[in-house]
Amino acid sequence: MLKGLGSAVHLAHLLLSEALGPGGTAIDATAGNGCDTLFLARQVGPQGKVYAIDIQAGALAKTSLLLQKAGVLDRVILLHSSHEEMEQLVTAPVDAVIFNLGYLPGGDHNLVTTSETTARALRAALKMLKPEGRIGLVIYTGHPGGQEELAVVEGVASSLDVSLYRVVRLNFINRSAQAPVVIVIEKAGVGDENQPAAQNP
Amino acid sequence: MLKGLGSAVHLAHLLLSEALGPGGTAIDATAGNGCDTLFLARQVGPQGKVYAIDIQAGALAKTSLLLQKAGVLDRVILLHSSHEEMEQLVTAPVDAVIFNLGYLPGGDHNLVTTSETTARALRAALKMLKPEGRIGLVIYTGHPGGQEELAVVEGVASSLDVSLYRVVRLNFINRSAQAPVVIVIEKAGVGDENQPAAQNP
Repeated sequence: MLKGLGSAVHLAHLLLSEALGPGGTAIDATAGNGCDTLFLARQVGPQGKVYAIDIQAGALAKTSLLLQKAGVLDRVILLHSSHEEMEQLVTAPVDAVIFNLGYLPGGDHNLVTTSETTARALRAALKMLKPEGRIGLVIYTGHPGGQEELAVVEGVASSLDVSLYRVVRLNFINRSAQAPVVIVIEKAGVGDENQPAAQNP
Repeated sequence: MLKGLGSAVHLAHLLLSEALGPGGTAIDATAGNGCDTLFLARQVGPQGKVYAIDIQAGALAKTSLLLQKAGVLDRVILLHSSHEEMEQLVTAPVDAVIFNLGYLPGGDHNLVTTSETTARALRAALKMLKPEGRIGLVIYTGHPGGQEELAVVEGVASSLDVSLYRVVRLNFINRSAQAPVVIVIEKAGVGDENQPAAQNP
């Protein structure tokens, strides 16, 4: 993995870290190899709760092993399902949700996330978010359908009411157009709704 | 000021915070009202050093007052000069440089930073940066010449060799085209030069 600012995953974690502390609740919408779940599990600590969802059983097995080695499996619930089902699977409001969109490295490359299910899952996550909670999306675009998925996520994210959600897009401007993109969405806090978010700074 | 992810200044500080700790050295290339200098001064602690540059004496007076109130003036050197002179003013290699490009809120709106001096100052900052050091630029675009200045900064930043510099651009995709933009540049660490920075993740 790339270090520092070169890593899309690191940037997503950095921006989510402010919204997720000890005792918090988070969802990894795409557990994959477990890298994001591990980050969330460390952030919430032993009193917190992380729901890790993946449609591939192999991904959950990898994630489970990684969490066990790190000694943080105790606070994680592994859910073998599609991330568009998250509203049915998790009832509590959540502090943070992370999506890693593309395909599982080393997994079945036919099982990519698709634009349609991703848009549904993102809308569900928006509803489940606590005030001041954040959603981080790391979007890989180098595979077939990747650019389309990015466009769908950007469409949903850029249409969010600026008085209710702050939306930041991060991209690597000295790399190819296929470099990953990060989008982070923050729900306004209670009483923040009338902040003049459309103005500087 | 906007809170959380809605604030361009907050985002720049968050991304610089990883590169600047106790005992560090930093430059505020555009001291303005002192908000960035205060952040840098707190990050470096009493053993660190911050150089705050501004072409307006009034800006340095405001900055000085803010730092004094916060009890961190001891580690700050105020320099009444143009930021394009920073190589002549500061000899040590630095961990972080911050630019706030536009005009001083409440100051003389005719004294905006200009594209030409900004490009020279940015190139100087790139030379002065330590390995793993970072430059943060907050770019306001709503004033005349603002979009041109953004284009110049993006031109310099996006042409940096990907094996030597990681360059991230942050923008607010559910706000107007005049919303501020943040660009953060990280110099590769010693031995990092051959990292495959053009690849995922």
